[in-house]
Order: sequence, then C-alpha cells, then structure tokens
Amino acid sequence: MTARKLNFGAGPAKLPESVLEHAQKELFDFNGLGLSVLEISHRSPEFKKIIGDAGTLLRELLSIPDNYEVLFMHGGGSGQFAAIPLNLRSLSTTTPPSADYLITGAWSQKAAKEAEKYIHVNKVSSCSSHDTIPPASEWKTSTEAAYLWYCANETIHGVEFKDTPEVPEGVNLVADISSNILSSPIDVAKHAAIIAGTQKNLGIGGLTIVIIRRDLIGRHDPQTPGILNYADIHKNESLYNTPCVFAVYITKLVLEWIKNNGGLEEMSNDAEYKSSLIYDIIDHSNGFYTSPVQKSVRSRMNIPFRIKGNDEKLEEKFLAEAKAKGMIALKGHRSVGGIRASLYNAITKKEAETLASFMKEFQSKN
Amino acid sequence: MTARKLNFGAGPAKLPESVLEHAQKELFDFNGLGLSVLEISHRSPEFKKIIGDAGTLLRELLSIPDNYEVLFMHGGGSGQFAAIPLNLRSLSTTTPPSADYLITGAWSQKAAKEAEKYIHVNKVSSCSSHDTIPPASEWKTSTEAAYLWYCANETIHGVEFKDTPEVPEGVNLVADISSNILSSPIDVAKHAAIIAGTQKNLGIGGLTIVIIRRDLIGRHDPQTPGILNYADIHKNESLYNTPCVFAVYITKLVLEWIKNNGGLEEMSNDAEYKSSLIYDIIDHSNGFYTSPVQKSVRSRMNIPFRIKGNDEKLEEKFLAEAKAKGMIALKGHRSVGGIRASLYNAITKKEAETLASFMKEFQSKN
Repeated sequence: MTARKLNFGAGPAKLPESVLEHAQKELFDFNGLGLSVLEISHRSPEFKKIIGDAGTLLRELLSIPDNYEVLFMHGGGSGQFAAIPLNLRSLSTTTPPSADYLITGAWSQKAAKEAEKYIHVNKVSSCSSHDTIPPASEWKTSTEAAYLWYCANETIHGVEFKDTPEVPEGVNLVADISSNILSSPIDVAKHAAIIAGTQKNLGIGGLTIVIIRRDLIGRHDPQTPGILNYADIHKNESLYNTPCVFAVYITKLVLEWIKNNGGLEEMSNDAEYKSSLIYDIIDHSNGFYTSPVQKSVRSRMNIPFRIKGNDEKLEEKFLAEAKAKGMIALKGHRSVGGIRASLYNAITKKEAETLASFMKEFQSKN
Repeated sequence: MTARKLNFGAGPAKLPESVLEHAQKELFDFNGLGLSVLEISHRSPEFKKIIGDAGTLLRELLSIPDNYEVLFMHGGGSGQFAAIPLNLRSLSTTTPPSADYLITGAWSQKAAKEAEKYIHVNKVSSCSSHDTIPPASEWKTSTEAAYLWYCANETIHGVEFKDTPEVPEGVNLVADISSNILSSPIDVAKHAAIIAGTQKNLGIGGLTIVIIRRDLIGRHDPQTPGILNYADIHKNESLYNTPCVFAVYITKLVLEWIKNNGGLEEMSNDAEYKSSLIYDIIDHSNGFYTSPVQKSVRSRMNIPFRIKGNDEKLEEKFLAEAKAKGMIALKGHRSVGGIRASLYNAITKKEAETLASFMKEFQSKN
C-alpha cells in the first residue's frame, strides 16, 4: 500500500485513519447483517439507529439546548443559502422582506448573492479586502430584518470568528459553520439557526446539518421546495426522502472519533497548537511568508499565505517540493492564488509539525 | 462473515457483490494515491475522471443523443419534483403556467403535489386504484402545458410503462425513471428531460441524474435555488457545489458492472426472466397470491402482491419464514400493505429462483 499522503485540502478533506479503517472493515458486511451499509433501507431499524446516534452525539458534543432541532438534509451549504431565506423570510417586518448579511469573504458573499433571489439583502458591513472583521458595534443591523447571516469561518479567505458576535436583542443570528464545525465550542443558544456541510470537519460530501430553534420551524414560504423545507424535514425526522445513508454513517463515525479523542476541548486545543505552529513561522519569516489576514481574526482551520511578495514561481516550487514529500492539496483557492494549508480536526499535530519543518527548510534554501 | 442476505428491498437496494468488493478493497487507498476516495477533492483530476467516466458510460449505455446533457445533482427524485417545474415552467404558453401530469401511483402523485407550488397542475388522467395505465389516446394533454410528467415505474404500486408513451408533436415529455433506469433501453430523444435518483438500480442515495435536451437549459425561473438550477449545474459541469463524491464513484462502478454484464439488453432479458418467474407463480396460484396490477402494465422491477385475499396474518407468516431463509425487505410499502419483491438489476436469476421456490413451498403448506 502507498504511504498515506499528508492531505491539507480544504474539503472534501482528510478523515481520521481509524474512521477509514472502520468503514472499510465493515463495508461488505455491516454489523454481521449480511448486507453492506450501502444496501440498507433508510427506513430500516439499522439506519434509524445510525442517524439517531449521529443526532445524539452532535447534540452532546455541541451542547445543543433542548429547544433546538437537528436536521439532516441534502444540498450542501449552497442549498442552505437558499433554504435560510425561504424558511425564515417571514420573520422580517418589512415589505419586501429583508435580511442582514455580514460579508467577510467569498462564502458569505455567495450566500448573500443566492439570498437576493428571495429577500432584500442588506450588507451590514463589507470590507472588500476580506482581511478583517469589522467590530459588531459598527454593523448596520436592523431588527426589522428576518435574520443576520455570518460565516463563522471563511474557507477561502482564512477569516474566522473567535466567538459568537454580540448582536442586539431580537436579532436572529444565522451562522454558516461549514468549515469550523466541531473545532471548538459554539454557543448555540445565541443563534436562530446554524448550518454546515459535512465534507470538511465532519465527514464527506452529500450531507448537510441544520440546527434550528424549534419555534422557527414552520415559517417557510409556500414555494419552498420540500427538500429545503425545515418543517417537512423535521416532521419526517430527516427522512423526507432518501438521504445519503453512507454520508450519515461516516458522520456518525467521525462524531464518535471526536468524542473518543477528548471532544471539542481537545479539538480546540489541537487547532490552537497546529495553527500557531504555522502562523509563528509566517510571522517570524521576515516577510518571506505573508498572511493576508489580520492577526485577531486569522482562521485556525484554513491558513492562506503567500511567498516572497506573491512570487508565483516560488510558490509553484513550494507546492512541487511539498508534493514530493507527500504533502498535497496545498494550492490556494484559484480565486486568491498562493498557498493554503487546511488544518481540520483530522490533521494530526505531527502532520502540522511536518509542514512547519518543511516551511522553515524551504525558506532557508530560498 | 455472515452469509449474504437476499435483499429484495425497494431502495436503497442490493448492489452487485463485485461493486462492493471493489469499493471495499480500495476504500482506504484509492488507486495507489495514498488517499481514500472519501478524501479526494471534487476538483481533483482523480474525481474529474470518475465523474467524466460516469457520464460517458451513462451516455453509452442509454444511447443518449448529442443534443442532450447529463447533470449530476443533489436532492434525489423529490428534489426534481420541484426542479422540473422551476426550470421548465416558462415553456407553458398559459398564464398562470400549467403542466400536465399523468397519475399512475404514489410517486407521480407526489411529483404533482410538489409541482403545484410552482405551476397549475392538470391531471391528464387519473385512476385512483393505480392498477393500470389509461391509453395515451385518452389523456387530456395540452400543447399549452410546459411539459407532460409521467413516472416510468411506480415503485410502490408496481405499475410500469413498457414503452415511452406516444404523445402529440410538441408535447415536452418528462420521465421519472428512478426505479427502472438501466433495466431496459429508453428512447431518450422522445423526452424533454429524464430524471432519476440513483439508490435503486444505479448506486446509493445522495445522487440524482438529470438528462435534458440542451435547448431547454437556461429557461429557469429566477427564484430557482442554485442547487436545483440546470443552467448553474451545467455551467459548472455538475460541480456547482461539493457533490457526494462517493455516490458518484459507486454509480461509476455500477455502470461499469452493467457494461461488463451485457449492457441493457442483458439487464432487460434478466428482468423479464426474473419477474416472469414471480408473476407466473402468482397467476398459477389459484388465487392464493394476487397481483393488484393489470397484466399489461405490471412492473418488472417491483412486484407487489397479496396472500389469500389480504390475509395479514398469513402475510406476516410469509415475511417471517422468508426472513428465516435469508430473504429480507419483502414487506409491502406501509401505504399499501402486503408483500413487495423488488428485482433490480443486481438481483441474480438464482436469487429470484430462490424466492420463487419459497413462494411455491409456502403456498403448498398454507
């Protein structure tokens, strides 16, 4: 077997080896059932246990209050960019309905663009360089808006909220936590809804998590497609139609892995350790490496950086030499260029150390 | 390892053993890459090859004409119940726009109900017993309608079209072939669009196939969510957002398996053989077994039947004894009761023979 690559990709991303081993071992025969998990009905007791366990583990790890529901859905984060306005626009007290969006990078920008199909979008603050988060006191929020959308971690631009933003009473806060879910605790009770795709920190593509305050379910627009309708999904216990059974199964295994490895406290400590390693090298490189993001809002999950004043040739060399050492998927997103190291939960401290050593060595030689 | 069950479930359903073995073997390390297929980026060359091969194989097996596009999407068949009216309602020449629906069972009924959110639904013919298909000459179709929807195989009621219905020139025919895709040839050119979830004959849950005539792409309503918008999916070569990479991979393996096992001709011959075995027993049981469906439209994929005039106790006994012999998932859908044997491509002739023998034996003892 080929040596395992060090996969610093932004998603779909590395999974813990033990999850892969577990899934491989029972792929042909699930639990002595004489069937693969790929063949079981979504209405079977076996799958109901898998999806039930996944929900219970998620509630436990994120300390989700009792007045919130967990929904498993199709469509990814991008599906939720439409689902949130469709399900919540009736909360706005203006005509036409409006929603507030905080733009901190490419993903909140995309969410706002999709929402404009359904709701008047008010950008409460926007900084086109996407290198910082303007303080909440400066946001032009409105209590007439249906909700305030923010992206807790911008996968492309590397900007992350360290805490839930403080907003005025009555503001329905909606968070996209697709790329930092389960990397640290989050105060669910401060949110109206939280959405996340699972393909970064929580499994594979094909599954979307929605955590929503129960009293907000059932406010959807009549034209909401069933697969994006929280009331339909909730009423059917996330079995409105056939889900990606395998994606739910993998997420359950990842949740068990997180629980068995110290939960969110340990994930958060590790994220701090791993990201500090890389940022320290950047900050002590005398400008050889540069981070485009202001220090206070730098992401612990996705670290974009440039080399020697955006020297693209040198960046190509960096990527090629990293690849030769087994470190892959370090290329920055095509829209921003440069390098990006994604350090999700499954990346070990040792893997981050290997990358850090390589960065030092590369600088010393160039 | 436990002996493999004989899985007659309606979906997610049995997969060919060779597909499971292949997937299991390379689950930890895909193609000597040092990565699992669960960890590769949807934008990697490896995945582009997988999804490209899946598209090419599907085009080849279904003889899809050059002026049709193949799209891979999220959301299942139920997502398409909304996507079709959202993408095609502008084809209607009436205000409000209308579409024709042929109701032949639970799934066309569901499709029509979802469509009513977006379009005036004209039921061209409806028979509440769902035991037959009224002849096309009697359908009240309209050339002013955006399209005519039919469900090629009703998974719950067991009603199947043997051929593409003949409709007047100018009618845009849309087919839901979720439960009989690739079980026999279909004349794609007679359709405006064809949709199918993959979890029955073509893989696992989490992937939806759309085959659409190219000139119909781009006619969507402005409020169509991006994940259901054919123009967005087409423009992004089915990578509008992160797909379920693993579901696409499994579908590619199933398509290869079909090709290597004689293609649609062989699948169709096998379906004829397997379903005839079961229907012959029903028809020669002197009323012990009864099929609720008229002979000319009986499905070769899903065979619902009752025992001794709907004797529920005896049906329970049948299910229990079948289970004891390793034959599972034979219970009829909760909305109709009784027994249902689903005989998708992956069910072997021998497995159908085993079920047939058991049915004979059960009758002789009861």
